[in-house]
Amino acid sequence: MSWFKRTNGHAHNVSDAEQYELLEEDLAPPRLRMPGKQPSYEEGATIDWQREEAAERERKRVLASQRGFHGLLSLVLDSCGMWLVIILTGLGTGVAGAWLDILVRWLGDLKEGRCTYGFFYNQVTCCSGLDPGEVCNQWQTWSEHFNIKLVFAQSILQSFIYITLGITFAGSAAVLVQTYAPYAFHTGIPEIKAILSGYVLDAFLSPWTLLIKALGLALAVASGLSLGKEGPLVHVSCCMAFLFSKMFKQVYGNEARKRRLLAAAAVAGVSVAFGSPLGGVLFGLEELDTFSSGTDVMWRGFVTSVIAAMALQYVDPFGTSKLVLFQVQISEVTTVWRAFELIPWLFLAILGGVLGSLMIKLNAAAAVYRRSSILHQWPVFEVVGFSALTAAVSYLVVFLRAQSSELVANLFLECDASRGDYHGLCNPTATWANVFLLILTAATKLALTAWTFGMMIPAGIFLPTIAIGACLGRAVGLITQGLHHAYPKAWMFSSCPPEPTVPCVSPGFYAVIGASAMLGGVTRMTVSLVVILFELTGALSHVLPIMISVMVSKWVGDYFGKEGIYSIWIAMREYPWLPPNEFRDRGETAMNIMKPAADLVVLREDAHGCTLQDIDQVVRTYRFHGFPVLFGDELVGYVTRDRLKTTLAPLLAEDATSGAQRKCTFAARPTESNAAVIDLSPLLEESVLHLRKEMPLELVVSMVQKLNLRHVLVSERGKLAGIITKTDIVRLVTADFPYTAALSERQW
Amino acid sequence: MSWFKRTNGHAHNVSDAEQYELLEEDLAPPRLRMPGKQPSYEEGATIDWQREEAAERERKRVLASQRGFHGLLSLVLDSCGMWLVIILTGLGTGVAGAWLDILVRWLGDLKEGRCTYGFFYNQVTCCSGLDPGEVCNQWQTWSEHFNIKLVFAQSILQSFIYITLGITFAGSAAVLVQTYAPYAFHTGIPEIKAILSGYVLDAFLSPWTLLIKALGLALAVASGLSLGKEGPLVHVSCCMAFLFSKMFKQVYGNEARKRRLLAAAAVAGVSVAFGSPLGGVLFGLEELDTFSSGTDVMWRGFVTSVIAAMALQYVDPFGTSKLVLFQVQISEVTTVWRAFELIPWLFLAILGGVLGSLMIKLNAAAAVYRRSSILHQWPVFEVVGFSALTAAVSYLVVFLRAQSSELVANLFLECDASRGDYHGLCNPTATWANVFLLILTAATKLALTAWTFGMMIPAGIFLPTIAIGACLGRAVGLITQGLHHAYPKAWMFSSCPPEPTVPCVSPGFYAVIGASAMLGGVTRMTVSLVVILFELTGALSHVLPIMISVMVSKWVGDYFGKEGIYSIWIAMREYPWLPPNEFRDRGETAMNIMKPAADLVVLREDAHGCTLQDIDQVVRTYRFHGFPVLFGDELVGYVTRDRLKTTLAPLLAEDATSGAQRKCTFAARPTESNAAVIDLSPLLEESVLHLRKEMPLELVVSMVQKLNLRHVLVSERGKLAGIITKTDIVRLVTADFPYTAALSERQW
Repeated sequence: MSWFKRTNGHAHNVSDAEQYELLEEDLAPPRLRMPGKQPSYEEGATIDWQREEAAERERKRVLASQRGFHGLLSLVLDSCGMWLVIILTGLGTGVAGAWLDILVRWLGDLKEGRCTYGFFYNQVTCCSGLDPGEVCNQWQTWSEHFNIKLVFAQSILQSFIYITLGITFAGSAAVLVQTYAPYAFHTGIPEIKAILSGYVLDAFLSPWTLLIKALGLALAVASGLSLGKEGPLVHVSCCMAFLFSKMFKQVYGNEARKRRLLAAAAVAGVSVAFGSPLGGVLFGLEELDTFSSGTDVMWRGFVTSVIAAMALQYVDPFGTSKLVLFQVQISEVTTVWRAFELIPWLFLAILGGVLGSLMIKLNAAAAVYRRSSILHQWPVFEVVGFSALTAAVSYLVVFLRAQSSELVANLFLECDASRGDYHGLCNPTATWANVFLLILTAATKLALTAWTFGMMIPAGIFLPTIAIGACLGRAVGLITQGLHHAYPKAWMFSSCPPEPTVPCVSPGFYAVIGASAMLGGVTRMTVSLVVILFELTGALSHVLPIMISVMVSKWVGDYFGKEGIYSIWIAMREYPWLPPNEFRDRGETAMNIMKPAADLVVLREDAHGCTLQDIDQVVRTYRFHGFPVLFGDELVGYVTRDRLKTTLAPLLAEDATSGAQRKCTFAARPTESNAAVIDLSPLLEESVLHLRKEMPLELVVSMVQKLNLRHVLVSERGKLAGIITKTDIVRLVTADFPYTAALSERQW
Repeated sequence: MSWFKRTNGHAHNVSDAEQYELLEEDLAPPRLRMPGKQPSYEEGATIDWQREEAAERERKRVLASQRGFHGLLSLVLDSCGMWLVIILTGLGTGVAGAWLDILVRWLGDLKEGRCTYGFFYNQVTCCSGLDPGEVCNQWQTWSEHFNIKLVFAQSILQSFIYITLGITFAGSAAVLVQTYAPYAFHTGIPEIKAILSGYVLDAFLSPWTLLIKALGLALAVASGLSLGKEGPLVHVSCCMAFLFSKMFKQVYGNEARKRRLLAAAAVAGVSVAFGSPLGGVLFGLEELDTFSSGTDVMWRGFVTSVIAAMALQYVDPFGTSKLVLFQVQISEVTTVWRAFELIPWLFLAILGGVLGSLMIKLNAAAAVYRRSSILHQWPVFEVVGFSALTAAVSYLVVFLRAQSSELVANLFLECDASRGDYHGLCNPTATWANVFLLILTAATKLALTAWTFGMMIPAGIFLPTIAIGACLGRAVGLITQGLHHAYPKAWMFSSCPPEPTVPCVSPGFYAVIGASAMLGGVTRMTVSLVVILFELTGALSHVLPIMISVMVSKWVGDYFGKEGIYSIWIAMREYPWLPPNEFRDRGETAMNIMKPAADLVVLREDAHGCTLQDIDQVVRTYRFHGFPVLFGDELVGYVTRDRLKTTLAPLLAEDATSGAQRKCTFAARPTESNAAVIDLSPLLEESVLHLRKEMPLELVVSMVQKLNLRHVLVSERGKLAGIITKTDIVRLVTADFPYTAALSERQW
């Protein structure tokens, strides 16, 4: 209607002919108003990378086209925004990681006692500043605090408070998660992998999730449940990046750009979790598969990672000015390793692969059982009950009593008379008792972890896995050492120094090997694991055994099932994530997987074009992401529902009576001289691929993987044959995973 | 002919009808004998990744399909072959790197004197085993050896031998390279980048090249020319992998697999060159762009890299049991850096970016000038002349007299009274003289390097670049230190310790910053540079300044031209290598770059099919890689000349008279019942992509980059519109490089 008004205003001063011309012009098709804002995606959708990249390029082009100082300034500001978010995320993650450590330590110590002169001091801080040899009186156990003299009563009180507080911590974490942020449960890495590959799940990154995950994580770790903080820290870091990115429209407004930022943030999470900045970068490359995003993402990840590590070092939560949790001191004696040690190490590697696969299977089975049983309705009770069980069992198995990180640190250390003996681990007369205890610890921990990982609390799997592996490794190390002491003259030990007093086998390093083998079996990562463990031990001479153990355990594990625990969880929750593995067809082609044209809703126009009403009808009736456009039988292109909707609405509103009958066309035949026909061809997606239906399936999968496609049209000599979406490919590739879609929350 | 003979043999025993049937069967199209061996590529071709990958998958499928023990064994052996090559390459590279160091040191010392009790000992080995304070009499300078007493004559003799030997070394290197292996000149990294992306250049990796490059490199480095050994070591390592791979058919026979192996080998080269195994891996990821090849390549590179580093450490060429060339000891005092230091560091970073770009431009200009001038005919004379000039200049500028690595090691060190003073560098009264000398050294080195890099000798650019940067950095450090001493009370230095005796500024670390900035400007690498320098300094607290300097210098450098020195050389020599950068079109589509259908040689068949003769005619006349196949106007597919040739030859030979007239078809219409027609459709390439001509150019470029395509067909509604090859894309992307194709050896 609007342009008629304008014409009428002019009509007084123009001749009839002129008025006719004006009308003629006004009758010409109005320019399509392309929506300036990108259509936003609904929760659960998969982003269209091609379109997002195109939008980002367009935005940059507009920025760069501005003249002079203003143009330069906006370019610099644009770039600064991104970097500011990166720096803030790095700092935030480092500080969050440090404070988490402090909180966990305080909560953990609180289970045993309190500081007399300040409730908020942990044991180490409370007792700091003493002279050597001086006894710390400022820290009181609860029985000292309540002045209980009877040893039996002391013991009862201590264990009561220990278990009660543990249950309380775990329970509050579960309540927090269930009430405020259900997405804060579990590790978060599967979801982040899915999001980075294009899944839209903004609720997973909300500020509430951030807060609850961080708080819940501290409570969960302190509760003594068998879980770690590594994966959840990655989630926390991504939430932070998401939060900071909201300050900058240019980052937040583009889904592709946002994902590049999240990749960098995830790297920072790993960097802080292990104090291993390079390991973080390689984790990003290997596990989060940011390979395809190129050098830029790698560089940003590196910057975030280093900043986070430095922030952590600056806060210095352990008061050691060291970055890493368990620094392994390889002593002068043990820098050399001997060829015969490869036999126990290979055994450990194979064991790691087998037990890793077992852990994955048990964990998946537990998750599926939980879903189908009554526990699904009562997650908080499950957590409370299981933490009670964990506390009770841990109190019995002595090595489990302390936090896992302390256990691991002690298992990695060599025995040294100058240090205290950790629960008799270094007692040379109790070798076989220790071996039994270590194996018992590992088995218990395995069972506990397989259940814990998946409960309604934040929980990482790295640290428990390391602990299991370290126990087994130490046990094998003790056995080897025992054999050496028993048979020092055996041919196997001929390369050892002849004096029996000089140690030949260092069980601490066996623990490292065991941990790396177990991690390899559970996560199926390679380079990043080795780098993380290399940054832990710091000795190049020992990288080779670590490397071999990771590799062998991955090989053995792959024999029982190709996928690591994160991929299994992604498949169970049915996120649209495509494993980067090579897919091999058996001679199938695109034809075998496509949804055939006969089953598709298409926009078909004939020589007369189509009316707006026709299109409106289709858009209203079907909620598909988009529709192929045909001219007769000929494939013209693909148009998204979103674009159609935003374009049609004003056109229909302009002329409520006759607008719906207006002709429109996608095919844009230049021969048609009817100017009143609305040319809709600019709405066609530029970047949709057309494949031939004879294309081998392998190649289709590899194209969707590498180009990150959302959908491709399959054509046969110019005619539409069908359509293949990413979901089809994901189903194809994950078809033989165990428990696929068992935990899916999708409504199909 | 052959099947007629066979039929005749049978004819005695069969009835007429049976004979007819037999003939009928024999007349049926013979099964096409698909060549079992992959057609080999000619030198200078680009491999077809899709086809190579398919062949590799096929081979694996055949292996895996073998039953029982034999099948398992062949799978294991197959995998072992690859790993054996990797391990051998790692060991070989490590040992080669170590022996190169030893050889260089001996040759370098030989320019100054000799060991009395053994000609083949270098100075350090000759004088080892002495008590502290004892004077080394076993090492004699040449004037001592020839018993010359006169100081003036001594000086003349020493400098004469120094310069003569330098020229001799350089000259012999040039003669070796020119006579035996022209590909052994220069760094080798540009060629390796091209080869890894699919270029076929087997001569570049031949055993002769390996030998000459290693030997020539030692001579060139010892000659005192301004060059480093880093890039050439990468080349040596790749040659080794190529040599070892010949032992295993399964590796050598597949071009894609061979390239994955070469990527791993290249990583080992960097690892040995810098003693930085992780830096090597990241170099592989960033500069050699092995991103796209996935986790496997990364893992293999990592293994090779660690093995090489360990082999180097085992041989221990420097007798220090340390891996790295210049270990920077950051003392307790200087672990803290202060905010004001960011100002000189930013200045260094900007300087590095500007000088790096200048170096690239000068070097390219020198290369182009050399090519067009008479020097092109006399490369050995050029080397001899320029090494004489270098020797003369180096003798004058005192810091250049020693080898670059020694200079850099001293520039990186802090002044320490317990160590000797390197050419008065630590003399506190000569600050301004030192600054002048350092700047002079940097300028001379820049000019010398810009010319040297590209002469007919093996030459790397890393070490000279580090030396230039370190000189500038040390100079800026000395200036800052001088300012601090002069104005200790200035607001700028308020964060320094108040006592003037406590050092506040550490010029040694400024040299590291300068080196990283200069490297950033010349190579435009980011993460891998930082990691290499991080492994050098070993202090996490100083990563941030290194990172900032690399980043800023890259930004500044990019302002003067986006490409690093290796990319420039690739473009100059016109290798078919596609920079991984993002390409942005200005609204162009595939149509704008394709070679249109009208200009193409096609195989066109009509309803009657075509004859073998027609095809043979085309194959004989045109030497294109392949031909699009049309049915009428309709696009059927693409067939390579190679496949046609190998298939047609036996068919034509079988029946010399009528064979050429036999009908054949690609379109494989099922309606045609004429069984005598040979169905050639299996020859069509399965994996050639068809794109629409409206596809945005950006997307075409990104597809060719990510999927590593050799060519794509452009179609328009089922009809052939044109073809786009990788070469077209390379030309498009490198169009605005300076000096593109200036050194090309291609005959177009």
